[in-house]
Amino acid sequence: MANFDFKNLYLVNPCKFDDECYSRAMHADHIVDNAKVFTSFKQCIKNLDYLIATSSIDSTNDKKHLRNAVLLEDLSEKIFQIDGKIGIAFGREDYGLFNEEIAMCDALLKIPTSKSYLSLNLSHSVAIVLYSIFIKINSSPTEKRKIGKIEKEKLYDFFSDLLDEIDYPLHKRENTEIMFKRIMGRAMPSKWEYHTFMGVLNKALNKIKKTCKK
Amino acid sequence: MANFDFKNLYLVNPCKFDDECYSRAMHADHIVDNAKVFTSFKQCIKNLDYLIATSSIDSTNDKKHLRNAVLLEDLSEKIFQIDGKIGIAFGREDYGLFNEEIAMCDALLKIPTSKSYLSLNLSHSVAIVLYSIFIKINSSPTEKRKIGKIEKEKLYDFFSDLLDEIDYPLHKRENTEIMFKRIMGRAMPSKWEYHTFMGVLNKALNKIKKTCKK
Repeated sequence: MANFDFKNLYLVNPCKFDDECYSRAMHADHIVDNAKVFTSFKQCIKNLDYLIATSSIDSTNDKKHLRNAVLLEDLSEKIFQIDGKIGIAFGREDYGLFNEEIAMCDALLKIPTSKSYLSLNLSHSVAIVLYSIFIKINSSPTEKRKIGKIEKEKLYDFFSDLLDEIDYPLHKRENTEIMFKRIMGRAMPSKWEYHTFMGVLNKALNKIKKTCKK
Repeated sequence: MANFDFKNLYLVNPCKFDDECYSRAMHADHIVDNAKVFTSFKQCIKNLDYLIATSSIDSTNDKKHLRNAVLLEDLSEKIFQIDGKIGIAFGREDYGLFNEEIAMCDALLKIPTSKSYLSLNLSHSVAIVLYSIFIKINSSPTEKRKIGKIEKEKLYDFFSDLLDEIDYPLHKRENTEIMFKRIMGRAMPSKWEYHTFMGVLNKALNKIKKTCKK
């Protein structure tokens, strides 16, 4: 993290910060000292505007939206269009992130690896992702799109309400909600785009509700 | 190395391949088993056609050619113009490569890092360099999401129909249609995502139309 100018480490239920921890951190002990510790993933991500999950396992089946991943290179390129608190979630060394954790994220990131040895060591994953973002920061234009966390949540709620109103089949529902999240996550809409899109969904909802009551 | 399809490990005066070595290698023990061991750097590089040194310390003084470095990104791009046995030399964890070793190399490679923490862990350096080369090798257009032109047009039509049905203000309309296009353009949905999204819009349309007729 220190090698690539990242400062904010959030940890969920970490092990003890013992001597080995500090000796491994080398000159980056300030990052360990300033790490924020949380007791749940949900609590940890609460104040983030845009959250990226990482996984070596993506899906080649386009229908499984949860694990439809974007490649690191493409995401590093796009991420600077966002203005807001961005988090990158790395999972456990052995199991990675659980599906329910990935579902809470806006996008799933995959580091391309050999087909014969997919799974990267956690520390290597972090190094590669941060490097990739770092070099883009240091060679990227300045104009950013502002992302709104509140707007984002509202848009998802509107979409969810819309699914309610149109009696969307229950068994497809979760997958479709995640798909919508993934599409929006890749598109990284601006505040204004959110507002406009919400306006459309809201009007559609009202129309359905009103006409149904008649 | 195994994560990024590299096979040939050359080592100069390494420590013993003990249990810890194999446990750290995880499923890449074949790379350890096939590693070639040399007693001098000179002997190690004898059969290589092109040798790249790595260092976190470069020189901003153009006259100091020894440590005039190329950046990883640029080198990864160019390396495929070379036909021959290419080696990448990584130095000791503590001291890196000595000047006389760097002098034997054809180029000096620098991984861009924070100005306040230049020096990368050896293992992270290797991961980042191999990743960077790997993605350039594999940047063929095969692993991309297939986009459907027909699906795309249809989705825009559905969106347009939805605007009709909800009596969307005329003066905002063009801008909103373009916004939708831009969001989708950035998200680059797959065929299945288009179909699922169209399914939702279609259901919403039908609901509005049916209830309006009552």
